[in-house]
This record gives sequence, structure tokens and C-alpha cells, in this order.
Amino acid sequence: MTRVHVIGTGLVGTSLGMALTRAGFAVSLADASPTAVALAADLGAGQVGDPSAPDLVVVATPPDVAGDVVAEALSRWPIATVTDVASFKVAVLRRLHRLGADLSRYVGSHPMAGRERSGAVAARADLFDGRVWVLCPSPDSRPGATDLVRRAAEQVGASVQVLSAQEHDNAVAAVSHVPQIAASAVASRLADLAEESVALAGPGVRDVTRIAESDPRLWTQILAGNAPAVRAVLADLVSDLQGVLAALGDLEQEDPERAEPAPGARGVLAAHLVAGAEGVARIPGKHGAAPATYASVRVLVPDEPGQLGRLFHDVGEAGVNLEDLRLEHGIGQPFGIADIMVVPAAAAHLRAELQERRWRIHD
Amino acid sequence: MTRVHVIGTGLVGTSLGMALTRAGFAVSLADASPTAVALAADLGAGQVGDPSAPDLVVVATPPDVAGDVVAEALSRWPIATVTDVASFKVAVLRRLHRLGADLSRYVGSHPMAGRERSGAVAARADLFDGRVWVLCPSPDSRPGATDLVRRAAEQVGASVQVLSAQEHDNAVAAVSHVPQIAASAVASRLADLAEESVALAGPGVRDVTRIAESDPRLWTQILAGNAPAVRAVLADLVSDLQGVLAALGDLEQEDPERAEPAPGARGVLAAHLVAGAEGVARIPGKHGAAPATYASVRVLVPDEPGQLGRLFHDVGEAGVNLEDLRLEHGIGQPFGIADIMVVPAAAAHLRAELQERRWRIHD
Repeated sequence: MTRVHVIGTGLVGTSLGMALTRAGFAVSLADASPTAVALAADLGAGQVGDPSAPDLVVVATPPDVAGDVVAEALSRWPIATVTDVASFKVAVLRRLHRLGADLSRYVGSHPMAGRERSGAVAARADLFDGRVWVLCPSPDSRPGATDLVRRAAEQVGASVQVLSAQEHDNAVAAVSHVPQIAASAVASRLADLAEESVALAGPGVRDVTRIAESDPRLWTQILAGNAPAVRAVLADLVSDLQGVLAALGDLEQEDPERAEPAPGARGVLAAHLVAGAEGVARIPGKHGAAPATYASVRVLVPDEPGQLGRLFHDVGEAGVNLEDLRLEHGIGQPFGIADIMVVPAAAAHLRAELQERRWRIHD
Repeated sequence: MTRVHVIGTGLVGTSLGMALTRAGFAVSLADASPTAVALAADLGAGQVGDPSAPDLVVVATPPDVAGDVVAEALSRWPIATVTDVASFKVAVLRRLHRLGADLSRYVGSHPMAGRERSGAVAARADLFDGRVWVLCPSPDSRPGATDLVRRAAEQVGASVQVLSAQEHDNAVAAVSHVPQIAASAVASRLADLAEESVALAGPGVRDVTRIAESDPRLWTQILAGNAPAVRAVLADLVSDLQGVLAALGDLEQEDPERAEPAPGARGVLAAHLVAGAEGVARIPGKHGAAPATYASVRVLVPDEPGQLGRLFHDVGEAGVNLEDLRLEHGIGQPFGIADIMVVPAAAAHLRAELQERRWRIHD
């Protein structure tokens, strides 16, 4: 029976303890807060206490102290493999180098799983189900150490992907850290708007700013810990936006009576928007596959108990699998629109079946 | 019977023709493209041809020519009220001033409705159902003209909100135009990423970049037409990001062995994130009300035909109304997670009912 020691019983540590326990590992737990670790144990994440000889130590502390805690664990348990789950990997590795840690037994990792809520109370055993878990073995990592961390990640339901620490940090800067900064920047613009102006907010800005609700303390640590990679991506983004700003300035100054107003300015805007469309097309769709083109069937749903249930029951009766779904709510109107994505071959059939069952289709 | 003439049969013009026809208005249609107007007529948006004396003319052309077309309509039909649906209002009004148009019969407007698809083929009679329709009467607009546009907007299902042209332009710059620019800027960063890096993209960046898929030609016109207001909001945003960049630079340079590393830098990051959280909290929730705090019930859904249908059928059987819903798809795993939002009082009941029906709950 593999013995795993989890240090840090917040959302990720507690969830991991629960998941590993369920998968048959023997889990022990530690946290700087006796209350936090007792709660995690009560939630079924493992036994409180330090083991004498764990096979694997998982450091799930706040990310700014991950390197120090990994180094302590490596020296305290001289045959254990140690990993951490911090959202940045280069800074942790650099800290371990500086501390002279035994890197043959260290494998950095990063489960791409989180929630808007934090702490042990938000933990769940299936937090890692279907998520990517990045492993970043260093050139010094022993294969056996990497294999052990991989096995733990797979046993809790994650898909393992191996990247170097630098590749990982560059990737998450672009797909996670800079989007977080941009979402906060867009959301900040709403703070001082009049009520009747904010009322014009539609589904677009809601989507753009949703992640701006996340925990500022945790995110401050993440951004600080990945500062070089985040800065490189953010500098490119700011440079793009400065080009857009300059083009808007030219347009503001342009004389509408001239034959050739503000040459080039509209081209800058168009190029910015086209580049964005090309970028978004690269995001993989469901299940990690290339983005699929689904057909959309839009259905008006009265805002009454059970109506969505009736709709999806009818979709099920039609034998059609929903590939994706988006709900739009009307403002000031007692209904919403369900945008049901299905494979194109199924759309006409689904439309006919729903219309027969008296649903109003919006295509 | 009120006679409405719609000029421009793209998505908005055709949808409006369909909706007004359904509401009992007599609608005539015109478009620079004979093919486009014939298609709109076939779709039930109205009769092709220019009327002798319309009560209301709606200019739904591409926004860069809206001012000129409004001016032509005002002089051609000397007793008609004229409105337009362009996404910016100050530039249209300024153009009309310059052309010496009769502003007593002009009321600018902007239905906050759109789709990712464009053109008459994407039109639907209920495009405006539950959407906000902003009216921007100028100081010169006759009350009767404003009332007529209001009646048309309400008859097609929209909620009317009155703002000045400048208020409107400032508001949409913050809630729509700058979010569009930011989404494109974030999405652009993904264009050159390696496949295995883009694979780390999760629900967060998908939400942030979704609107970056929109039509670059239309959006170039919109941004150019609202250049002054967009520039003001974007300049603030860029200034925020420059502060973040500088803080990241300080952190990159900091010496980890010093007692007081990079003073202030983490404070800048934290302030940026906190301001974002405060901004997003101002976005109204469903039905224009203040954002409601819903309880979330997360359910694992196997990726098989009919499973979502079975889930929502069971939710309906439990007598609980879904307030909102988000689907998350696992990467490389044959299932997804349905995040069902319900009023807090209903959550425990729903959880119990779903568990009894053998659903795996993720809270």
C-alpha cells in the first residue's frame, strides 16, 4: 500500500487526500493550522500526523512557500519522492537549486484543477477527474520518482502531460495567468459606471470577466511566482493594445471630409480582431480534440420550474446527445434561451422533434 | 396600421422586419443588394420596395454609413420619424448635424442584440426578446418621434432604456467594445503556442476569449465609430496593465535573499485583482436584478446520449427551477460536469433527490 503524505490541506490538498484515499492509498495529512488539518481528516482526506517513511510527499501549501516546504520534505524523508502542486514551476525549481536540495527525488507538478471557492470545505474527491495534470520532471529527476507521481495523478482521474518547467510556465502564462489579469482589467472598468450603464452588460462581458471573481490573495502569489513568463506575454498584449490605442487616436483626429481618412488605422483594428479570431480557433474543444463545429439549436425556455427539465427530457427522448449547452437569460423577460449544440447531422432531427413537442425554436 | 420601412436587411434589419410583421406593423424593405432584400422578404421580414409615406424608417445598414443613410431618409420622407441601430450614437448624431438634417424627427437607438453569425440567414423574429433597446433622443427630438421608436422596440419584445448619445457610447465602450478588444488581445496570445501548451486551456480562457470569434469587419466599423469613448476606456485599461507589468518587472528583479523584496509590487498585483473582483460584482444577474447568489450543485454526467436529458428530467421531477447552468467538459475523459445553479434554499433538497437517483454529486 503506497503511503502518501499531503502537506497543506486547502482545496487542492484536501481534495487530493480524499481522492487518494478513495483510490486505496494510505494518506497522512499535515497543515500549519491544526483546525484546517482536523477538518480535512473529518472530510475523509486521511489521518492527521507525520509518517515515518512516506513513499510520496505532496506539497500543497500556498505557492509562495512551496519551494521551502519541498526542500524540508526532501531532507526530512530521505527516500521519499516529493512533488508540489504550485501553479508555477521554474521559481520552485530555482529555489530548490539554491537550497541544495536532492533533485533526483523531486518532480514538480501542476494539476489544472481549481474552483472559485477555496479551502478544505470546498474540497471534493473528484476535483481532478478529467483534468490535465502537468508533470515537470527536471533533468535530475529519477524515472522512478516521475512514475510514482504519474501513478498518483492517474489514480485520481487526471490525464498526465509532461512538459519542462519553462514550457509549463510559458503555457500557463498565456492560457491562464494573463487571461486572469486581462479579465480583472476589463472588470475594473465597470466599477465606476452608472447603474444604467452597467445594465447594458450582456453575455459577452459576463464571459470575459467571470474569472475576475477569483481569490486575489492566491492569484497575487501565482502572478508573483510566474513573473518572468507572465511579464513576457503581458508585454506583448500591452504592445498590441497600444497599437489599437494609437489607431483609435488617429481615427478620433481624422477629418471626415478628407478623401483618405486616417490611413492604416482601420487596418490596425481589423488585424487585431482577425488575430484574435485565429487565436481562439486554436483552443481545443471538448475532450481535448480539435475544436468541433457543432450545429446550434436555440430553444426558448419559459422561466418556470421544470421547463428546462422538460426540454432536456425531450432532447433525450429524441435520442440526441447534447455536445454543449449555453443558457442566455433575457433581461426583464420571464424566459431564457437554451443554445443546444449537437453534431450537425442531428440538428434537423432535433429541431423537428422539439417543434413537434411545442418548443419554440430560434434558428 | 403603422408603416415601417427597414433599410438594410442584414441580421438586425431582417430580424426586426420579421418581428415587426409578427407584431402587426406593415413593413417594407430595402437593401443595396437585391439578393439580400429578396431573401429577407422570403423570410417574412416584409415587402420589397420603397413606400411613399412611412411612419417610421429604421436604418439598419452597416454602421459606418448609418449617418448618411439617416440623412437621406429624413429628406426623402419629410414627415417620417427616422431611427438607426448602429452600435455607436455620437458619431451618427455628429454626422447628421454636419449634413444639416432635421433632427426633430431623428431618434438614435441601439438594440443590444446580436449573434456570432451575421446576415439575413441568421435572422430570427425573436432576436430582441428580452434584450435592452437603448433610445438616445437628442435635445431636438420631438416627443412623438421618441414615442414611436419606443413603441416599435417594445412591440418586438425589448426593454427600452433612455440614455444620451454620449452616455450610451461611454457605456458600450466599457461593457462591450473594450471587452471585445481585450478578448481579441488575449486570444492572439494563443496563436503561436505549441499544441501541448494550448492543450492546457481550461474553462477560464475559453470564457475570456469566446467573443473574439465575432466578425472582424463589423467590429472594425464599431470600434472606429466609437473611437473617442473606446480610447478613453482602453487608455485606462492599458495604464492599469502597465502598472501590473512594472510590478512584474520588479518581482523578476527581486533578490529572494533580501528581507524586503520588491516593496509594493505584490500590493500592485493585489490591488489590480481586488479592483477586478469589485467590478465584476456590479454586473447585474439574470433579469436585470442585482447579482443573485445561487447555490451550485455539481453533477458528474457520463458522455452518453440522453444522460443530460435524464439529469434535467430528474431535476424537473424534484420540482426545482434551474437558475443557471454551466457545463464543463473533462479533457480526455468520457464525461463532463454540469454545474447547476439553484436558489440556496433548494440546493440540499436537489442534492438529496439527485443522489437518490444515483447521480454523483461533486460538492
